[in-house]
Amino acid sequence: MVTRKEVAELAGVSEATVSRVFNGVGPMKAQTKQRVQEAAQALNYHPNAIAQSFARRKSGNLGVVLPYVPKVHLFSTYYFSEVLSGIGAKVKEKGYDLLLSFRSLDEESDYIERFRSQKVDACIILGASDTPSERAQLKRLEAEGHSFCLVNQHFAGESFNEIDADHIGGSYQAVKHLMEKGYRQIAFVNGSAQFSNSADRYEGYTRAMREVGKDSEELHKLYYEGNYSRTSGYRMAASLYARRHEIDAIFAANDRMAIGLMQGLRELGWEAGRDVAVVGYDDSDVARVTDPPLTSVAVPFYEMGSLAAERLLAQVAGEPGGFQVKLDTELVVRQSSSRSAME
Amino acid sequence: MVTRKEVAELAGVSEATVSRVFNGVGPMKAQTKQRVQEAAQALNYHPNAIAQSFARRKSGNLGVVLPYVPKVHLFSTYYFSEVLSGIGAKVKEKGYDLLLSFRSLDEESDYIERFRSQKVDACIILGASDTPSERAQLKRLEAEGHSFCLVNQHFAGESFNEIDADHIGGSYQAVKHLMEKGYRQIAFVNGSAQFSNSADRYEGYTRAMREVGKDSEELHKLYYEGNYSRTSGYRMAASLYARRHEIDAIFAANDRMAIGLMQGLRELGWEAGRDVAVVGYDDSDVARVTDPPLTSVAVPFYEMGSLAAERLLAQVAGEPGGFQVKLDTELVVRQSSSRSAME
Repeated sequence: MVTRKEVAELAGVSEATVSRVFNGVGPMKAQTKQRVQEAAQALNYHPNAIAQSFARRKSGNLGVVLPYVPKVHLFSTYYFSEVLSGIGAKVKEKGYDLLLSFRSLDEESDYIERFRSQKVDACIILGASDTPSERAQLKRLEAEGHSFCLVNQHFAGESFNEIDADHIGGSYQAVKHLMEKGYRQIAFVNGSAQFSNSADRYEGYTRAMREVGKDSEELHKLYYEGNYSRTSGYRMAASLYARRHEIDAIFAANDRMAIGLMQGLRELGWEAGRDVAVVGYDDSDVARVTDPPLTSVAVPFYEMGSLAAERLLAQVAGEPGGFQVKLDTELVVRQSSSRSAME
Repeated sequence: MVTRKEVAELAGVSEATVSRVFNGVGPMKAQTKQRVQEAAQALNYHPNAIAQSFARRKSGNLGVVLPYVPKVHLFSTYYFSEVLSGIGAKVKEKGYDLLLSFRSLDEESDYIERFRSQKVDACIILGASDTPSERAQLKRLEAEGHSFCLVNQHFAGESFNEIDADHIGGSYQAVKHLMEKGYRQIAFVNGSAQFSNSADRYEGYTRAMREVGKDSEELHKLYYEGNYSRTSGYRMAASLYARRHEIDAIFAANDRMAIGLMQGLRELGWEAGRDVAVVGYDDSDVARVTDPPLTSVAVPFYEMGSLAAERLLAQVAGEPGGFQVKLDTELVVRQSSSRSAME
């Protein structure tokens, strides 16, 4: 292993000067810097990066905290894979590496520890949910001045960095689309309540339904709740089927539940796109290949990941001010949202 | 910020002792260790992890090198998402973090730099391809004694750590299945040649075809090559369609190409599962939702990722010997592999 001393000797400078060149610390003549770099190159000298990081107090890593659920193939879910692809592309562009850590839902998050231990310069938190303990931890992170950003999760009343999408507008569009097709008895299959996403979707749905005069009691009767999994959609099929004479359309809060639901309904002889109109949410890659192809609300997850990484790394680089951005969503109409494939 | 000195004073030991406790270095009385830990807890002292790593020469990170292709949403491809899910689950179990870095195809890989800079303790390399420069770099990594593992890529003649799947057997099974259905004019749509995977698939295909007396000239006429993308499959549809009176079945080297191909053929009026039998490869999540559902060869990507991480971390922990493992593949029969949906 080539040492700093050998580089110093070849370049005719002190060891301290070699360190300063590689740590980018202090003023330095361009000529001296060049001489050191040439000597290092000639000797194939590689300064130890951990020692460098220690000097600069920078890890060169952007952290991403992911929820860990045993047996769930996390990277295979459309939402996480797209957000991570967007983060990855930006991180690559900026010369950072991506440090992923997995948090079990039953363990306290170690957000703060990760910053204190300087493994990351900033952190994107995915799959956060609005619970008192999570909120408290994020507030503490903020109080300690660490750079972090939430994606697709809003904490009302806080000014955390957030990149979100307009789920109220997206849901409103989805329901209006069903109404334009003449449907009024639109059931809503929501996801878990601890995500701000679910509340947003409910608000968009409710807003559209109230415009056609639906009251709280009617909305209550049309409300179903799953947990965003395909299985939870599948399991709801029987109870929706039982009310097939009252319901003419179903809006599901994500594609996975919509797909499970369509599968369950088909087994009962009630076909989406023929007997009942179904709209999903996310416009995931499977939406276009289901039978019938699924009408869904497209969310720019990739762009959300990319933007989160970009804004956060800019903040690390010294850009002042926080950010809260909401990107647009867009309805993509396919065959599942009519009641007759023949029409 | 609480210092080591303050902890030492409270515990009544030297600063060096505090360091030794937190670095896990050297012999230590249990009582002394406990006293230091209690003092640290009382003062809310957090030793700097980079300094700790420096002392222990361990990063606590498992590296994963991924190919970076602009515009490709990498984590959304079935192969990468499943392998990473498997790696992630194992890393979580073992208390490691995952350091992802992205390598452009046009840049030299920095495998060695990552080890030298001690950002990772070991490294899994995904999407490697058998080119002379890549081979040379891997040999150098090996020569320097770094722990690394390839997944789903074999380097003939080397003894690198590898977790692979039996693609020869999988392809053989796929073609035999088509033969059992009576088809003999089976075209083969392979992927890019620099992956050992492609060669394996070709070998399995060829073996089955030779058993029914096909000679090299016939095999040559039935051979097509794409690049594993959906688009490359779609583009091949016209030339396969032009030979529709000679060809009765198509075996594609991955699902993406098979799906693009089926789409292209449908636009030409030639339906998979009705007019031509199609088999894909990977058994990706979309295989079961295409129309018709796609017969495909299941590869245990998740298990491959999990096993790669497990064996590699065991090696880092001191387990002797290298490993080369090949997991089984399995044919999953669906409707696309018959010529009539009615039969």
